[in-house]
Amino acid sequence: MSRLLFVDIHSFMPSLEEKKMELPTYVILPAAGSGERMGIKQPKQFCNILGLPLIVYTIECFERLPWITKIFIVISLDRINYMQRILLENDFQKVELVEGASTRHRSIRNGINAISSDEDDEQAYLEKSVVIVHDAVRPFVDENILKKIALAASEFGAAGCIRPLVSTTVAADEEGFLDHTLVRSKYRASQTPQAFSYPIIKTAYEKISEHNLDFGTECLHVAQEYCQVKAKLIEAPEDVWKITYRRDLYAAEAIIKEKRVSPCLVGFDDNRLVKSIQSKLSEKSLCCTSVHWMTSTPKHINSIAIMIEGEESLQDQGNETLNWLITHAIGGGCLIMILLTTSQPNVEKLHQIAHTLSERSKQNCVNVSILVLEEKTYYMGAVERIGSLVTTLMFDRLPAFSGQVFMV
Amino acid sequence: MSRLLFVDIHSFMPSLEEKKMELPTYVILPAAGSGERMGIKQPKQFCNILGLPLIVYTIECFERLPWITKIFIVISLDRINYMQRILLENDFQKVELVEGASTRHRSIRNGINAISSDEDDEQAYLEKSVVIVHDAVRPFVDENILKKIALAASEFGAAGCIRPLVSTTVAADEEGFLDHTLVRSKYRASQTPQAFSYPIIKTAYEKISEHNLDFGTECLHVAQEYCQVKAKLIEAPEDVWKITYRRDLYAAEAIIKEKRVSPCLVGFDDNRLVKSIQSKLSEKSLCCTSVHWMTSTPKHINSIAIMIEGEESLQDQGNETLNWLITHAIGGGCLIMILLTTSQPNVEKLHQIAHTLSERSKQNCVNVSILVLEEKTYYMGAVERIGSLVTTLMFDRLPAFSGQVFMV
Repeated sequence: MSRLLFVDIHSFMPSLEEKKMELPTYVILPAAGSGERMGIKQPKQFCNILGLPLIVYTIECFERLPWITKIFIVISLDRINYMQRILLENDFQKVELVEGASTRHRSIRNGINAISSDEDDEQAYLEKSVVIVHDAVRPFVDENILKKIALAASEFGAAGCIRPLVSTTVAADEEGFLDHTLVRSKYRASQTPQAFSYPIIKTAYEKISEHNLDFGTECLHVAQEYCQVKAKLIEAPEDVWKITYRRDLYAAEAIIKEKRVSPCLVGFDDNRLVKSIQSKLSEKSLCCTSVHWMTSTPKHINSIAIMIEGEESLQDQGNETLNWLITHAIGGGCLIMILLTTSQPNVEKLHQIAHTLSERSKQNCVNVSILVLEEKTYYMGAVERIGSLVTTLMFDRLPAFSGQVFMV
Repeated sequence: MSRLLFVDIHSFMPSLEEKKMELPTYVILPAAGSGERMGIKQPKQFCNILGLPLIVYTIECFERLPWITKIFIVISLDRINYMQRILLENDFQKVELVEGASTRHRSIRNGINAISSDEDDEQAYLEKSVVIVHDAVRPFVDENILKKIALAASEFGAAGCIRPLVSTTVAADEEGFLDHTLVRSKYRASQTPQAFSYPIIKTAYEKISEHNLDFGTECLHVAQEYCQVKAKLIEAPEDVWKITYRRDLYAAEAIIKEKRVSPCLVGFDDNRLVKSIQSKLSEKSLCCTSVHWMTSTPKHINSIAIMIEGEESLQDQGNETLNWLITHAIGGGCLIMILLTTSQPNVEKLHQIAHTLSERSKQNCVNVSILVLEEKTYYMGAVERIGSLVTTLMFDRLPAFSGQVFMV
């Protein structure tokens, strides 16, 4: 079973003395909502972002942390099969599905009951554990804030993330006129993750009224009302924001693109070209390595631009590089083959290779493109053009450009 | 001078009886802020989105409305030259620049004083006018909500937009623990546009205290405190949200792409191809016309895919179509030339044409691409591929794809 070492709550600098207290941590992800505000039929937690349902990105935030014991996803009955397929396809090991209910609080209660009846754990173990409640539609929660919130919950019984208010909060009277304005600096927007010591959240949801189960929105308030626990409020980074509207999906897609590109240049002999690509990628805050052989490519790479000399080795090198990407680039990637030729290439054949590789890589969300570079053009100064193209292909990873042949 | 007909406040259906009241309307756009929250040096209102500073999109929302008299942009002294260039380049006729101040309220007061001393207007005219206050970083405000808010201000003295709260608002005690939670359904997030009858906002900002000038955030509150006017609150569409964080810029870019594409297919004889492109565009909620000749292209079009038979007419037709786009597509567009050939084309020449056209169109933010389609490939079924490519080129308009030659 996983453990989190208990360190000072205000900092995680390695130099601080570790208190070495074991802190088993469970996660509840309510994901039974319907996403009406988005104006789309599909619940937002299942919206496709770069080939994966949104919830996959959220699960990954927890799955990869060794100190998270188990993740309970509360989901509506009619989506359990679909969700099981997602778990299998993404090889998630720590997730357990729990049947959802009609409101958020009822779903969370189901999650708590699932923890309580979890056969793997003894009661004494449960008593000292922490329960993190998070939203499936906040896919960018990082380890730092999760640790802070878990440790604060263990110390104070309950803890929640807050952000400054972006707008002033106002109250309307019954006729729809401004009644009063809240002083913005005195208030905060409550966010998730939130965390609770297990005995607190267990007791709170045993005592909770039917009215609060139906109309309440705030877990921290439940802990305060039924267990007289004042939650510690912790300032969260802006990335914990909740995907609510269609525009938030656009923003999430752009952030995932930014976070998930790890580029590598293979076999580039020309330093000007390497520098051009690297400088363009660095404008997008991406760091790019350059190696001479596929075999020395770092493991975390998911976007490869490979220089290939002569048409005859294109197919083989393309296949080999693609195999590498399919094995290593979890969640998709990009393969750009730059073909350096001395004569006009056989476009039809190139197209066929691009198409075949692209079809084979579709399931793994790897984009494949071929850039044809005639040597004479190259020396006339195609450096800038290749730099922009490679950067855009890697960064934007638009499905329509997979299987395409570009003349540069 | 422009006028707005006064119609019923709750609806703008043409069938309703118009009250025919004249309502001169001024706009104040405070744009002197520094955008610290974005984590970037440039103030967010000047961030580049698809080739234009963000504020241009906001100004356009007002400039194009015949019933808006004048737009006063309050701007820091060191950016006045830069802003004047923006106004010239985008041919804005209604904008007057006003020197900014150290806080939002002080800047708004400067804006009001500029209206008061506007020599074009008589005092009696000013007395019955309406002043809209909006943020430069809310570029998607539509005419419908602007009319509603202006009319409500004229009727009630003050009016402001609201949105439902996305998060629960909480108050912290002095030690950083949860003090109390607000019942979410009783509160709203205050947004702009807000509007005021001129005498109200003029008086309010004459009486306002130094403390409120420095620390206040809410104009509606100023009107309430100094003129005892209760603002009418009006539910706004989600698009009025404020661009605050980097993620909001990503969202804005995606929305602008979505809103600003008006595609047209020229000279497409093959109905399968037209249908393929149209169906792919409609997945992005875009409506696409198809005409046989350039001369019959509708005026509002900004993205043209034109079918060209034979290399020899490529240059001329490309030039002609580009000229049309440069004249008509205000704010940028897209030109895709699909070259239908029977033989392998001269790639170098094609590239040169693409490059030349692309360079010429850069200033006008028109993307130019050439798709080369060998007839034999075409009949083997390139329809799907062309459909995706044309759609992506039109919709995403990535600068790196301008000047490129694609083999399809």
